[in-house]
Amino acid sequence: MPGDTYQPLTVESLPRRLGPVPEVGQRIGGDPAHWSVREVGDGNLNLVFIVSGSDGAVVVKQALPYVRLIGESWPLPLYRALFENHALTRQAARDPGSVPEVFHFDETQALNVMEHLGPHVILRYKLIAGDKVEGLGAFLGNHCARMAFLGSELHMASAAKKADVGLFAGNVEIPAITEALIFTDPYYAAEMNHHTEGLDPVVATLRGDVALKTEAQRLFAKFASNTETMLHGDLHTGSIMSTATESRVIDPEFAQYGPMGFDIGMLTANFLMAYFSQPAHRPADELEDYQGWILDVMADMLAAFDTEFRRLWASERTGMLYPRRLFEDQGQSSEPACEAVLAAIREDAFGFCGIEIHRRILSLAHNADFESIEDPRVRAPLEARSLMLGREVILERTGIAGSNDLCALARRCAEETTP
Amino acid sequence: MPGDTYQPLTVESLPRRLGPVPEVGQRIGGDPAHWSVREVGDGNLNLVFIVSGSDGAVVVKQALPYVRLIGESWPLPLYRALFENHALTRQAARDPGSVPEVFHFDETQALNVMEHLGPHVILRYKLIAGDKVEGLGAFLGNHCARMAFLGSELHMASAAKKADVGLFAGNVEIPAITEALIFTDPYYAAEMNHHTEGLDPVVATLRGDVALKTEAQRLFAKFASNTETMLHGDLHTGSIMSTATESRVIDPEFAQYGPMGFDIGMLTANFLMAYFSQPAHRPADELEDYQGWILDVMADMLAAFDTEFRRLWASERTGMLYPRRLFEDQGQSSEPACEAVLAAIREDAFGFCGIEIHRRILSLAHNADFESIEDPRVRAPLEARSLMLGREVILERTGIAGSNDLCALARRCAEETTP
Repeated sequence: MPGDTYQPLTVESLPRRLGPVPEVGQRIGGDPAHWSVREVGDGNLNLVFIVSGSDGAVVVKQALPYVRLIGESWPLPLYRALFENHALTRQAARDPGSVPEVFHFDETQALNVMEHLGPHVILRYKLIAGDKVEGLGAFLGNHCARMAFLGSELHMASAAKKADVGLFAGNVEIPAITEALIFTDPYYAAEMNHHTEGLDPVVATLRGDVALKTEAQRLFAKFASNTETMLHGDLHTGSIMSTATESRVIDPEFAQYGPMGFDIGMLTANFLMAYFSQPAHRPADELEDYQGWILDVMADMLAAFDTEFRRLWASERTGMLYPRRLFEDQGQSSEPACEAVLAAIREDAFGFCGIEIHRRILSLAHNADFESIEDPRVRAPLEARSLMLGREVILERTGIAGSNDLCALARRCAEETTP
Repeated sequence: MPGDTYQPLTVESLPRRLGPVPEVGQRIGGDPAHWSVREVGDGNLNLVFIVSGSDGAVVVKQALPYVRLIGESWPLPLYRALFENHALTRQAARDPGSVPEVFHFDETQALNVMEHLGPHVILRYKLIAGDKVEGLGAFLGNHCARMAFLGSELHMASAAKKADVGLFAGNVEIPAITEALIFTDPYYAAEMNHHTEGLDPVVATLRGDVALKTEAQRLFAKFASNTETMLHGDLHTGSIMSTATESRVIDPEFAQYGPMGFDIGMLTANFLMAYFSQPAHRPADELEDYQGWILDVMADMLAAFDTEFRRLWASERTGMLYPRRLFEDQGQSSEPACEAVLAAIREDAFGFCGIEIHRRILSLAHNADFESIEDPRVRAPLEARSLMLGREVILERTGIAGSNDLCALARRCAEETTP
């Protein structure tokens, strides 16, 4: 691609600029002048184009130097495209087939050219539409377990993992956004916050709860100062694309090192919010079935995480942590140690889950599950239930033994009226 | 200093090579050919010279490219002198006067030229000799609290702290040594381990204790994947120099980011080992008094840590964690949150304390408190008590409320006979 200064692509300039790149041109095929180019970015931080030609289609994702939702007043470094590339490479190695293949990366232009996921749709929209996805829970649980385990010093050589921590320490601005928006803004009247009319009493309850805020900050401190494994960092249902039978994880530009329970906790929160939002999206005769399916997916995901983590513990524990020479080589089982690690991950995950629920309803970036409910009198009570569940999950997380407890808690909160 | 390739200094070459450096030459004074140069390094990793002349004296510390204790077969990167320099700078800023002043740094030669602590003696030797140091507990508690708090995101701007984490991520080899020697080797028959004849039954008890090893690995995972603050990383009583009334912290070349409880936990362990070793060093009529003084110092240190941490919490909490806008600005006290943070630090500290005791008696690097006891029949039971206290401190650390509990536990273990 000609030029060595950053230039945002446009629908018009893209064929001229990417046509000469062999890895791109050959995959799309034909004369670039005849390519079809659509800008489809609905995110906040990037330009996203679908480009198709005679032989196929690709996705071109280019970072913008500012937060799109806010405008040029909130600048954002372009190097996040590099970290997205690093993350995609590691995800592909640790869980093959789970993420789009990358065909071309240009650091100066902050762009990745990737596999176009043709028939896939953003999972969040499928959940709003009431579509089911086969094998979803197992896919996500396996993915999170593989990323958690294989990116940690349970598996990686310590020097390689620490070098990678040093590398990702350069991705500073994006985590800083995550940090403020997720962990602090929900709990005070931050300038960019907004919430549905009618939620004020619940919001006051949460912001008046010192124990809750203390726990939220404890989780914040853990998130900010923990390098257990490489996280996706923004793994909600808008970062997953699915067909009826197959799913992929996308958009890891918030990748950073952090606690093993973070990604799966955030996913858990997004399934719970999908669950709570359903009464506004489903006819009454479909509600129970589809809500049950969502909780089943969440439970499958949590179960698959544990099962896959245990399998990796048995077969891929090659790192310096919990080494075999302290356990198996002395004739002692390390299974209790594995269960203790899983219990700690679960506790963290439930904590992060509660915080993700709070920030998606009270902070800057809301999600379509609730935002697409037009009537605030319908939306507010559904959001209120989610918020109160979030609080309970954070405060009582050590007592939630697993997905059965969590599903029961969700069902109970769904039946309660607004406080 | 001439030459741009690394060359270890010798007593003979030092005046010729450092004489021309103004910051060094002017401080020592006179003709370098008349300087007095003594090599005094008794550590494992460095050359250390005391150089004096007509106007004063300095310490020259130069890193060796291998572990001195083992020889050239264990290479070690020279860049640790750079990290020692970075650490000394940060320590001086966060706790002025607590560390030697640095006059000159040469990255290529891996050397720091520092203030000579004239009348100071390594604290460990004072503890063996039965010397008291005024204000020791308060100095160490204040120092650890200032380093813990002011190096964390309780105080630092997040971007600056994360950039520093990235910088220190380059100091990989030294933590790797710490990690293997401290957290894993004590709990299996590692090649470089050695322990006193007569300890086999206690060693077998520890190595057979799966719960203990699981907790030790949990602490290991925390140490390896935590970046709460910049640690000294090797803060034992051999890294402190004292007169009768004044103390300094030296040798931060193991500096890395890690849990806020690590340094003070390691110090606690070293005071406990000094305490347990005393029956071999003191006449009977001095034993109770001096042992009591050691426990008092330890208790003072732990109390000063808490007091200073609370003071900093109230006055220096400018970072993104536990921000005032979630507490004070909403008319709510953050004191319970501060106490929860302190309790978590204490729990970590006691865990690391137990592990430090185990590794100093069972792993490669022992300490003079016990090693200077010539008769293994005297040494073994004193070490055995320390080991069993270490086990109890690790397993029961959540139940140890503070220094009173810990002192009582130490006194009880000191009265027990070897298991």
